[in-house]
Amino acid sequence: MGKTVPVVENILGANAQLAEANRSLLDASRTFAVNFMASPGAGKTSVILRTIQALKDRYRLAGIDGDIATTLDADRIAATGIPAVQINTGGTCHLDAVMVQNALSQVDLQHTDVLIIENVGNLICPANFPLGAHLNVLIASVPEGDDKPYKYPPMYRGVQALLLNKIDLLPYLEFDVDHFRQGVEALNPGLAFFPLSAKTGEGFAPWLTWLEEQIAAFLQASP
Amino acid sequence: MGKTVPVVENILGANAQLAEANRSLLDASRTFAVNFMASPGAGKTSVILRTIQALKDRYRLAGIDGDIATTLDADRIAATGIPAVQINTGGTCHLDAVMVQNALSQVDLQHTDVLIIENVGNLICPANFPLGAHLNVLIASVPEGDDKPYKYPPMYRGVQALLLNKIDLLPYLEFDVDHFRQGVEALNPGLAFFPLSAKTGEGFAPWLTWLEEQIAAFLQASP
Repeated sequence: MGKTVPVVENILGANAQLAEANRSLLDASRTFAVNFMASPGAGKTSVILRTIQALKDRYRLAGIDGDIATTLDADRIAATGIPAVQINTGGTCHLDAVMVQNALSQVDLQHTDVLIIENVGNLICPANFPLGAHLNVLIASVPEGDDKPYKYPPMYRGVQALLLNKIDLLPYLEFDVDHFRQGVEALNPGLAFFPLSAKTGEGFAPWLTWLEEQIAAFLQASP
Repeated sequence: MGKTVPVVENILGANAQLAEANRSLLDASRTFAVNFMASPGAGKTSVILRTIQALKDRYRLAGIDGDIATTLDADRIAATGIPAVQINTGGTCHLDAVMVQNALSQVDLQHTDVLIIENVGNLICPANFPLGAHLNVLIASVPEGDDKPYKYPPMYRGVQALLLNKIDLLPYLEFDVDHFRQGVEALNPGLAFFPLSAKTGEGFAPWLTWLEEQIAAFLQASP
């Protein structure tokens, strides 16, 4: 035991240091990075695709996509016409700052305003590995159930925005939005919250308005 | 790097050894253990509750429930009237054989025919940590999407049965069951497959029949 704990702490320390280095690199090129996290099947890629479609005529975008085994999601993002880099984690259950550092070297940051990062589908592990992004977004989804903030608190605690996807399914499922939000508020008071549907597009306008405000504030503040 | 890899191999080796010890303990008491795994929100607890209701008058049951932060699921299982033990992993993203070994010491194995283990909600990490169960069951769900076998192969590869839950939502979602099954067959040919709905009960009869066959075969083979 005496040896195990320090090893873990060193790894987390190294990740935090590299996340800061990633952030400095992004800041230097005035690139706003958004890290999307979610459980498998919450609709990360579908939400990202709609977000890209809405932003791509106004900003220069690029994508980094993490998956444990395939390039399926990166292919979908590249099909929108923006540059996309795939990180195949080789089974690892989250992106970490080293993987993102390597991927950043393949992105033309000087000509990228907004970098979209899609994390591996996992509601636990990515919370422990900051990547250096300016904005961490959790995508929950109605079919997952309204108890998830109570059961997976670290992920709900560590983000700056929460999207609740698949609201088109609310008529067919027992999902108490108030119970869900109470759980969220207890963990992350005042968290920006956007119920929406990547299938129908409902609810995207407020999310996109808010996101563009964050991007604009970043670009104005940058030197 | 030279030191890191051996440490990981030792941990996995230790888990495998302890999983074998768990299995021996279960075999000695003629207790058939089933390990349920799934993504968060796939409906593990709901499937387990229906399964318990169907079996509890014919077998002596007990439950072990893993969660990262709460006892919500264990409480639901205990409410069925069977003994339940909670493993709070303290944030760890999967159960491992040590946690189960500790929990087994709190189960009256001599008077338990079937032990239900509910793993932590995670579609990646539990695949790497066998617990010693006789049967590993993956619960997929329709809202997750039909691409999950392609994107999360290790979990689909390492199980002896696959349940596809929430089939009551098939009319409202684009889910190609053939595409899903092709992905599964490529990873795990001939895998026992049961589409069902924990909400309506549809499809439970074949799953329960199959499960009881596995239990009966185990109990007959035990000394």
